[in-house]
Amino acid sequence: MHDRTNPEGAIAEAVAKYSNWGRWGPDDVLGTVNFIDEGKRRQGAALVRDGVTFSLSQRFDANGPQKGWRNRNNPVHAMLGTGLDAVHGPAHFPHGIGGADDMIIMPLQCSTQWDGLGHIFDHGKAWNGRPADKVVTTDGDQVTGIEHLAAPVAGRGVLLDVGRVIGDGELPDGFAITEEHLTETARAHGVEVGRGDMVCVRTGQLTRVRREGWGDYAGGPAPGLSFYTAGWLHRTEIASIATDTWGFEVRPNEFDDAFQPLHQVAIPHIGLLVGEMWDLDALAEHCAGDGRYDFLLVAAPLPITGAVGSPVNPIAIK
Amino acid sequence: MHDRTNPEGAIAEAVAKYSNWGRWGPDDVLGTVNFIDEGKRRQGAALVRDGVTFSLSQRFDANGPQKGWRNRNNPVHAMLGTGLDAVHGPAHFPHGIGGADDMIIMPLQCSTQWDGLGHIFDHGKAWNGRPADKVVTTDGDQVTGIEHLAAPVAGRGVLLDVGRVIGDGELPDGFAITEEHLTETARAHGVEVGRGDMVCVRTGQLTRVRREGWGDYAGGPAPGLSFYTAGWLHRTEIASIATDTWGFEVRPNEFDDAFQPLHQVAIPHIGLLVGEMWDLDALAEHCAGDGRYDFLLVAAPLPITGAVGSPVNPIAIK
Amino acid sequence: MHDRTNPEGAIAEAVAKYSNWGRWGPDDVLGTVNFIDEGKRRQGAALVRDGVTFSLSQRFDANGPQKGWRNRNNPVHAMLGTGLDAVHGPAHFPHGIGGADDMIIMPLQCSTQWDGLGHIFDHGKAWNGRPADKVVTTDGDQVTGIEHLAAPVAGRGVLLDVGRVIGDGELPDGFAITEEHLTETARAHGVEVGRGDMVCVRTGQLTRVRREGWGDYAGGPAPGLSFYTAGWLHRTEIASIATDTWGFEVRPNEFDDAFQPLHQVAIPHIGLLVGEMWDLDALAEHCAGDGRYDFLLVAAPLPITGAVGSPVNPIAIK
Amino acid sequence: MHDRTNPEGAIAEAVAKYSNWGRWGPDDVLGTVNFIDEGKRRQGAALVRDGVTFSLSQRFDANGPQKGWRNRNNPVHAMLGTGLDAVHGPAHFPHGIGGADDMIIMPLQCSTQWDGLGHIFDHGKAWNGRPADKVVTTDGDQVTGIEHLAAPVAGRGVLLDVGRVIGDGELPDGFAITEEHLTETARAHGVEVGRGDMVCVRTGQLTRVRREGWGDYAGGPAPGLSFYTAGWLHRTEIASIATDTWGFEVRPNEFDDAFQPLHQVAIPHIGLLVGEMWDLDALAEHCAGDGRYDFLLVAAPLPITGAVGSPVNPIAIK
Repeated sequence: MHDRTNPEGAIAEAVAKYSNWGRWGPDDVLGTVNFIDEGKRRQGAALVRDGVTFSLSQRFDANGPQKGWRNRNNPVHAMLGTGLDAVHGPAHFPHGIGGADDMIIMPLQCSTQWDGLGHIFDHGKAWNGRPADKVVTTDGDQVTGIEHLAAPVAGRGVLLDVGRVIGDGELPDGFAITEEHLTETARAHGVEVGRGDMVCVRTGQLTRVRREGWGDYAGGPAPGLSFYTAGWLHRTEIASIATDTWGFEVRPNEFDDAFQPLHQVAIPHIGLLVGEMWDLDALAEHCAGDGRYDFLLVAAPLPITGAVGSPVNPIAIK
Repeated sequence: MHDRTNPEGAIAEAVAKYSNWGRWGPDDVLGTVNFIDEGKRRQGAALVRDGVTFSLSQRFDANGPQKGWRNRNNPVHAMLGTGLDAVHGPAHFPHGIGGADDMIIMPLQCSTQWDGLGHIFDHGKAWNGRPADKVVTTDGDQVTGIEHLAAPVAGRGVLLDVGRVIGDGELPDGFAITEEHLTETARAHGVEVGRGDMVCVRTGQLTRVRREGWGDYAGGPAPGLSFYTAGWLHRTEIASIATDTWGFEVRPNEFDDAFQPLHQVAIPHIGLLVGEMWDLDALAEHCAGDGRYDFLLVAAPLPITGAVGSPVNPIAIK
Repeated sequence: MHDRTNPEGAIAEAVAKYSNWGRWGPDDVLGTVNFIDEGKRRQGAALVRDGVTFSLSQRFDANGPQKGWRNRNNPVHAMLGTGLDAVHGPAHFPHGIGGADDMIIMPLQCSTQWDGLGHIFDHGKAWNGRPADKVVTTDGDQVTGIEHLAAPVAGRGVLLDVGRVIGDGELPDGFAITEEHLTETARAHGVEVGRGDMVCVRTGQLTRVRREGWGDYAGGPAPGLSFYTAGWLHRTEIASIATDTWGFEVRPNEFDDAFQPLHQVAIPHIGLLVGEMWDLDALAEHCAGDGRYDFLLVAAPLPITGAVGSPVNPIAIK
Repeated sequence: MHDRTNPEGAIAEAVAKYSNWGRWGPDDVLGTVNFIDEGKRRQGAALVRDGVTFSLSQRFDANGPQKGWRNRNNPVHAMLGTGLDAVHGPAHFPHGIGGADDMIIMPLQCSTQWDGLGHIFDHGKAWNGRPADKVVTTDGDQVTGIEHLAAPVAGRGVLLDVGRVIGDGELPDGFAITEEHLTETARAHGVEVGRGDMVCVRTGQLTRVRREGWGDYAGGPAPGLSFYTAGWLHRTEIASIATDTWGFEVRPNEFDDAFQPLHQVAIPHIGLLVGEMWDLDALAEHCAGDGRYDFLLVAAPLPITGAVGSPVNPIAIK
């Protein structure tokens, strides 16, 4: 029975059932990305029929949703040279060549992103049971840095447009997506979800905030996965889950005095690769049009050494 | 005849022959990426036979080659929370959840990257003949920002391992790769290069500096494309060119008092997508092993609004 | 007569009367800081009777008022090493020494600051009539960078606590401080304002937002100097003006469709050094206690080469 | 006897003799800045006779000495708006007003700076005996952050131009300044050093690297205080020590396998405020001219909350 007052107990229970610690040996740094094998990538590539691509990334710029919580600002893109300088400023270079340079300052969790395995801990333990203080120091994640995911994150993607199937296109804030919702959506789409798949769940919240303004998109109420989908996340042996929301789980969380309890199970225990703030709208539109909800998905993080997350521009190809 | 003293004349001559201005209409923002069509992507996907992936990205960290030229520092990866804090610091969150966050500060040209169309100008003109000062202001590239390349940069990749075919694995610094070298390499590989292909040229310089230390990898002498490959770059109608060097052209440049003259033709006039500092070594090893030098290449930039370049983790799938 | 619909006309009229262009020769880079002479500094030093100091700076941290307008975020202070690492992490250094390092990322206009002479232009003209595009490029202010003010900004400071004298401690938002208010306040304080003085005007807005929350402190309605104090600012030959508000002039501005019209006269034409977001509360309390409203003020900017502004920790000594 | 092989022993011995732990109570956050009292500030102000000022700060820009060690890059000053935009770009504002904004990214130890009390630890202990891991977390220095020094750092400054008195203007790299050198220099200058004074030691290294290039100014060999000046630093009860070098102590250090052993005594045990990379040349020239080596020194750090160091523009007034 759901006891709103005892998140710690519910987490412990889920951990007992769904932990993948040791599943890929004591030295593992990939978690559920281990489920993506070569066959899965061949299967993904075989899904390319039209040759159309979709970027599942929001834009990285100052107009994003961040409000500064825990130093999470929107990206600052600063120019270090411009066309104005090239045309009107002093010449820096010979024979008429001119150039522009730029830089970016951004939290790695500011927009469309993957959470690395070092992003969340449970009672001081990181993925595979390692002591969090030995894993993530001020020099970064010494063990499971996102650079380990540089190559493998490519395979079969599956879109579950729960917003469209269960809602009227958009789920309301606070809506908890259950295992039944996920299953029903897959059935409606005629798609199966299994080992090694990279699952994208569209709630429609991004569609809504685009229309109505960011509001509290970054950390406020949102539709998202119920805490009790932990079993499904574990049992299906999917490689990753990504949503169009700030955190992939429902907010407010389903417990009193809680903070992202599903993260606490999914990342350090299941070893699940979690994507957030993905833009699934154009892809969803296309899937609704042709009825095909699986595709090749290539979503390689930037290999920032020791990072506990990474911005990503996931590419779906159908 | 090659006149070392007249880069401006040679550039003008090349521009007269190889300009693509207007080829895709006055409003074009894609340049040669237009050559990547759906058929090319289907062709690319069909090249996936084994399901193996290669990240063609160097790591992004403080140990990179940059020395501060034009504010190009190596990336600074700063932690905003760590496992040390989670275990030993004051608790920020309930029920035993802990987390780590991080941020990055980096020039967009610091490591493995794409040059955007707004990165280089010729006599004050940007791609498609637009006035550079109307295109790239301090607010960024208002017209051809890298965000326009968020979705399409996926298709058939071709590796030309010139270092292996022409050199003994590595070309020396200052070696100018000619059209003949490119053609001979393709012939040796048994691969054809044509419209819409994304060509990766391995010189071996990265292999060498990895062994011997960065030295002046960032801007010093390097093997690279001869200025006179401009015709080949144009005629083959390739979508992009990328190398394992800081700039894709030979350094020192083939003219006195010159700075990156091939850039001045390739980017603003041909509209070519140029990649730099790619790591082609693992891919090259595999290609040498199985004799197949083409593959699916997905190399989507981060859609940083108005950026004139972007870090990228290009994924080759064979 | 005040015509709300014609800011451009009012500005032109003020400029015609109050311009200091050429006053200190064609090469001047100091503006009204020229008024601070050695005698003024001796006068300032002679005001030190008790030996007590006041920092007139707000704190620089993530809890500041900024909301991201024009990339003006609050400072991000990131640790590059901590005591947690020193105690629990791997040892980096011998014989038991440990250390912590840190960095900051901040807009130079984020908190307590000086506006440099290159911060504001009038119809494309910067201080002393120079073309703004020749002065401030992407490489910074090539002529009047804040580094020129590294040494001289020290002298006699005068506090005008208008909030206390005219208001009941705090002026309401939108309150326009007139020349009469300034004069009356000085008279009430028994202090004279003259050539070379550094004038600090306390409105009390900072006191209020500290109590009630930042709200729109950064750019919203605020008490401040009336546009029509331009004559007083010019005639008194003060070296600088600073307030406890985001911009030193009243907001909403006194014209329709206007943006900081007094800045447009004060900075590029009068050459006035303008300070914003100063914290005058503790100093004001002390002045009210002993009835002495002048003091030694040392307010040297950080000499950031080419900067158009600088954070500053102004020190008042009485 | 000096035993090069036992820095840890020498440090322990110095600590036993010179510790100030508890001297100002268990809650102290100021260390030797406690020695600056109101009388000391009155004394400092009385030293202002000419009214001339000297900035003791190097410039903050990309041309500094840093090479990236421990992410210590030179400052990056990026423009967020320029005069080029104001003149040639799209208008952002009404009635002819234009503006330029900028930002800075810098390690707080990059150039002229104060070390905060949380910058250095001895065997896991910070100033006053506090556990370093409870003091400096990823959220910054929770106890002795540099913001506590916002107001008090103003008083009597004393220049000891050891480079001029002991050397021929410049001490060679590796020269260890002893207590005798300091005493002899003070005698030659006719100046006394005592409780609460802020002592500036000029070695001349900065003069040399300005002439010859930075070389390894940031961390390489340098003249500086001998480890054995710890007793003098303690006994004189000075408030602070600052030099024109990267670290204030001699390098190479006087022990094998050592790293900044004097720091390990001076900061966490003596509680001494340490300044580095100060530019003392112009001041030294003036002092040599008039024979007066003491002055008012105002050297307030930027109150960056929780910082373990701060850039500073120290102002000397004579």
